[in-house]
Amino acid sequence: MSGLDLGMAQKVLDSQPFSSLVGARITAFGDGAATLEIDSRAELHQQNGFLHGGVLAYAADNALTFAAGTTLGPAVLTGGFSIQYLRSATGTALVARAEVVHSGRRQAVARCDLFAVGEDGAETLCAVAQGTVLNANPS
Amino acid sequence: MSGLDLGMAQKVLDSQPFSSLVGARITAFGDGAATLEIDSRAELHQQNGFLHGGVLAYAADNALTFAAGTTLGPAVLTGGFSIQYLRSATGTALVARAEVVHSGRRQAVARCDLFAVGEDGAETLCAVAQGTVLNANPS
Amino acid sequence: MSGLDLGMAQKVLDSQPFSSLVGARITAFGDGAATLEIDSRAELHQQNGFLHGGVLAYAADNALTFAAGTTLGPAVLTGGFSIQYLRSATGTALVARAEVVHSGRRQAVARCDLFAVGEDGAETLCAVAQGTVLNANPS
Amino acid sequence: MSGLDLGMAQKVLDSQPFSSLVGARITAFGDGAATLEIDSRAELHQQNGFLHGGVLAYAADNALTFAAGTTLGPAVLTGGFSIQYLRSATGTALVARAEVVHSGRRQAVARCDLFAVGEDGAETLCAVAQGTVLNANPS
Repeated sequence: MSGLDLGMAQKVLDSQPFSSLVGARITAFGDGAATLEIDSRAELHQQNGFLHGGVLAYAADNALTFAAGTTLGPAVLTGGFSIQYLRSATGTALVARAEVVHSGRRQAVARCDLFAVGEDGAETLCAVAQGTVLNANPS
Repeated sequence: MSGLDLGMAQKVLDSQPFSSLVGARITAFGDGAATLEIDSRAELHQQNGFLHGGVLAYAADNALTFAAGTTLGPAVLTGGFSIQYLRSATGTALVARAEVVHSGRRQAVARCDLFAVGEDGAETLCAVAQGTVLNANPS
Repeated sequence: MSGLDLGMAQKVLDSQPFSSLVGARITAFGDGAATLEIDSRAELHQQNGFLHGGVLAYAADNALTFAAGTTLGPAVLTGGFSIQYLRSATGTALVARAEVVHSGRRQAVARCDLFAVGEDGAETLCAVAQGTVLNANPS
Repeated sequence: MSGLDLGMAQKVLDSQPFSSLVGARITAFGDGAATLEIDSRAELHQQNGFLHGGVLAYAADNALTFAAGTTLGPAVLTGGFSIQYLRSATGTALVARAEVVHSGRRQAVARCDLFAVGEDGAETLCAVAQGTVLNANPS
């Protein structure tokens, strides 16, 4: 048990200036899973009008870390992650859903699916990630 | 030969709104290598005053892609990458130096070293990345 | 459609001398998924009696590639993969289940779960992987 | 200082039955680096007469782990790694050279270059890897 709930997770996210700059919000947090959402806007695009890969990488990084925070608690360090891009991310928003696949004393490993949300609300998988988050204070 | 030079690479970077939002500039481009630099500022931080991991992930993604652009040409698609964080990134700036390790007809593989620049200009390695960039128009 | 079935996939596997050396068999193949199984034996262990990480890495590599073969056809090249180890792999066998998450003209991206099978047949997740497989003959 | 030398590292390698099955030897060990070598033979091939990707993945996994052992000591756990294949591995032998890029109390991160050795002794880079090794007994 991490002792955190969605409201506290949103406060942690709000305390990250870069997450505010990107415009991320957290819409699910608990039981080994976390969801980040980012509304699309021109500032987040690359040169062809798609969401920049760096926005997806940010979302994967942070969603993986929050998911791990549900099992490891608030004192975590992102160890690293791997991301594969599948399709250009278009539409109105990006949703990053991360889920812990294993959590130990020392670290947690999680996966993340990143979806582009269309005008009609339909989600299209546009990237997948897998990463490791360290417990900053292993007992 | 990609037919691009540093000035043209900076124009491509400037045409990415998200790169402008982050404040990235390209300071080296050619011969299988590219360097991105980002001045540190509060907007790019996480909750403890370090550069957010998402900023490093953005820089790795884009530096790897520009490095590959020196060998594959301008029509590239980032396939994916893996990043490992080594230390918290403090200081005045972030420097991401990427280098192609192999470039074929179909794709290029590159590595990236990410350094935090201290007040005195000293660079400290804070993350390493490795990724794949696809040729969008293989002949 | 790849035009391959389980019997043909087993023939491909049998034509890989290293897969015979390891003792791998393919137990599922089709519809974007493939399963490899390896009976545990002393020759596959590391110094503490667990399956060597290299055996798991082999299984991930090959299961990802066979899964991609169900959508891309037989002419594939493994691009690369990332694997995270979760627990020591003990028990009687290793099962590697891979599934394609996206398949395009150019390449497929797949994930793989690796399970250790206990004496009682119970499966324990011991590693996760994610990788890219290239179509060797994109039309 | 890890308190290990090349002779002791070779003994550790010899105590891994799978490394004996593959036929790996360790030819350099110390100062944050380790080199594994494997003579090519038919048993290690895939269906087209090249070294199987699983052999390269095994070599990357083990070279990364031994390199980390030079800084972390003998009690290590491989956390995971990412490997990208660049070319088919032909020739008489495989050489995997790994180097630690950062070593902390908790874990080390290392990179590995994998070379195919030709009849004439020339080395060709055929894969690159990057991985994390955990200290099993952090003080």
